Amino acid sequence: MRIAELSRVSGISAATIKYYVREGLIPPGVRTHHNQVDYNNAHISRLRLIRALMDIGGLSVGETKELLAALDSRQLSARDSLGRVLYAVADHRSPVGDERRESATRDVAALLERRGWHIAEHSPALANLVDVCAALHLLGHSDVVAALDEYAVASEAIAATDLGLVGNEPTIERMIETAIVGTVLGDTALSSLRRLAQEHLSATLLPPATGR
Amino acid sequence: MRIAELSRVSGISAATIKYYVREGLIPPGVRTHHNQVDYNNAHISRLRLIRALMDIGGLSVGETKELLAALDSRQLSARDSLGRVLYAVADHRSPVGDERRESATRDVAALLERRGWHIAEHSPALANLVDVCAALHLLGHSDVVAALDEYAVASEAIAATDLGLVGNEPTIERMIETAIVGTVLGDTALSSLRRLAQEHLSATLLPPATGR
Repeated sequence: MRIAELSRVSGISAATIKYYVREGLIPPGVRTHHNQVDYNNAHISRLRLIRALMDIGGLSVGETKELLAALDSRQLSARDSLGRVLYAVADHRSPVGDERRESATRDVAALLERRGWHIAEHSPALANLVDVCAALHLLGHSDVVAALDEYAVASEAIAATDLGLVGNEPTIERMIETAIVGTVLGDTALSSLRRLAQEHLSATLLPPATGR
Repeated sequence: MRIAELSRVSGISAATIKYYVREGLIPPGVRTHHNQVDYNNAHISRLRLIRALMDIGGLSVGETKELLAALDSRQLSARDSLGRVLYAVADHRSPVGDERRESATRDVAALLERRGWHIAEHSPALANLVDVCAALHLLGHSDVVAALDEYAVASEAIAATDLGLVGNEPTIERMIETAIVGTVLGDTALSSLRRLAQEHLSATLLPPATGR
């Protein structure tokens, strides 16, 4: 199909599609003997994936590119590809609460020890968690830091579901795509489910506005 | 203290502090008889909260303003304030996968029914969850949609911890601040914990790159 048709089907403008091609997010179309550029169904699928990661998952162009590179890499084992995916989607936020970083580092190390989690020292999620704990201490919300054990138990159940979904896939390409889609869109699903569960529980656990 | 001192202590430039005052994110300083503007410790606390919500929680200026308005409102009950907080932090993403929205709506309604969750029809988290499901169907990852029951069970445990933290606070102002900080920074903590749990479990559940 021509770029106008690809644009119509995917809902993405021709200019944006050309930008994604230049950035290496999607492969270029094939030039035909009529000197036209031809796109196929694989381009539609890839554009849908890009839009979901950016619009629903909130990823940047750079983060999306990094994930697609992991998806397209044919030389890595399943575990190495997944490791690359995990580290790419743990975008590092600016640190807040630097003066509390030392005690926050101890909090997180003790949490990992209690859970028996073996984590590489350079794991970006580790740095993010330390940042959050430092900010919580600085804001006077150490009570939230103390609740991280309960959050970690729930997170372990979530991660077991995640890896079950990945492990069920028949090919390494599908495993990596499931890891990407499940982690990025799954984050949005999980934050929505958390708010829905809060809404449901707050009706039963907190006193109503008026009467009785 | 003068604005230069406030800037030094908070690590936020004087220009940004003035911008926050204009936007109503922090109250203006008090003009002294020497015609200087004076700031106090409440300004430092508020600036720290703003920076944590934006830098760690990834909120926009508009979302941060909406949350601070809920915090500063003195006329609402605890439940109404929390409802405002919940709805403000469920920012609505662009829909992807419109053609699958009908079946996604049925999926989410069935999930709520199975969990026994009572949710207002206009809840923004509900619309977000439908968007995610529609995108997952469109991408050919209906298996992730099928796993939402397991995610919902974990989310209910997380929400129970959340409301326990809020319920432990002595004043309504502290309750609302805990709801804001716990939900926004908690989202970042939870996505980090999910990746750490994935890293830990993937070492035991997936085959290594080489040997044995």
